Amino acid sequence: MRAAELAAPFPTVGLDTSALEALKLLAGSDLPGLVVVDHQGRPMTILPGTQVLRMAIPHYCIDDPTLARVIDEEHADAFLHELADRTVEQCLPAQKHELAIIGPDATALEIAALMARTRTPLVVVKAGEKMLGAITLDSFVDQILLS
Amino acid sequence: MRAAELAAPFPTVGLDTSALEALKLLAGSDLPGLVVVDHQGRPMTILPGTQVLRMAIPHYCIDDPTLARVIDEEHADAFLHELADRTVEQCLPAQKHELAIIGPDATALEIAALMARTRTPLVVVKAGEKMLGAITLDSFVDQILLS
Repeated sequence: MRAAELAAPFPTVGLDTSALEALKLLAGSDLPGLVVVDHQGRPMTILPGTQVLRMAIPHYCIDDPTLARVIDEEHADAFLHELADRTVEQCLPAQKHELAIIGPDATALEIAALMARTRTPLVVVKAGEKMLGAITLDSFVDQILLS
Repeated sequence: MRAAELAAPFPTVGLDTSALEALKLLAGSDLPGLVVVDHQGRPMTILPGTQVLRMAIPHYCIDDPTLARVIDEEHADAFLHELADRTVEQCLPAQKHELAIIGPDATALEIAALMARTRTPLVVVKAGEKMLGAITLDSFVDQILLS
């Protein structure tokens, strides 16, 4: 099977989307990650769920568990709501990583290797600048094991 | 909210479980990852979905996309089935990483920071040696936003 056969429609979020709405979409629809598109609708980054959550966490808490521990329970429960004031664009990671984007002719092994390498359970299938759809890890395994 | 309140029952796999059965559990139940328990039933590692998939991929294909590309489509479709001959224990990564395991009193911010840092959308809550349950990223966000 090739990527174009495995791809299915997948919701996207824009750069101007509220970061809180993006997080609600992720959790409310049980998505494994989010596809962020630019102003022309072209996929520009793919964030695994953990990295969407990361947008909400103060930087000093991520690398140092002892700092997260000193925030009291009331404030620790409120941190997600602070995303309401920011757009997805304002929260995107500054570092550029390899993106989980693949061409329509990629084989199952290429797709799996890309998911493992980028640690992203979601791959966008792109033909030229057009997004054909996305492949989630769960649907990928289901389809490959049944084929 | 504290980790003990957020934890829910979560399926586990043993070291002797067939790696193929583990992968089928992951995909068939749409789990974000797997909790591997030792022979005494104690959680010993937590694998995000992408790293469960990684068990099936020949090492040379993960780091070098050009090598994955030379495997023909028929063989690329079959690679997952090769997991049938191996147990979870035989496939576990050799490197030791920080585990997504947290104590019952951890706050929401500590849980989120651990998910982001370990890139694992699944955290096991442990009291002493006992696994109280697990918290998935989706259920975490749902519960925190509603609280």
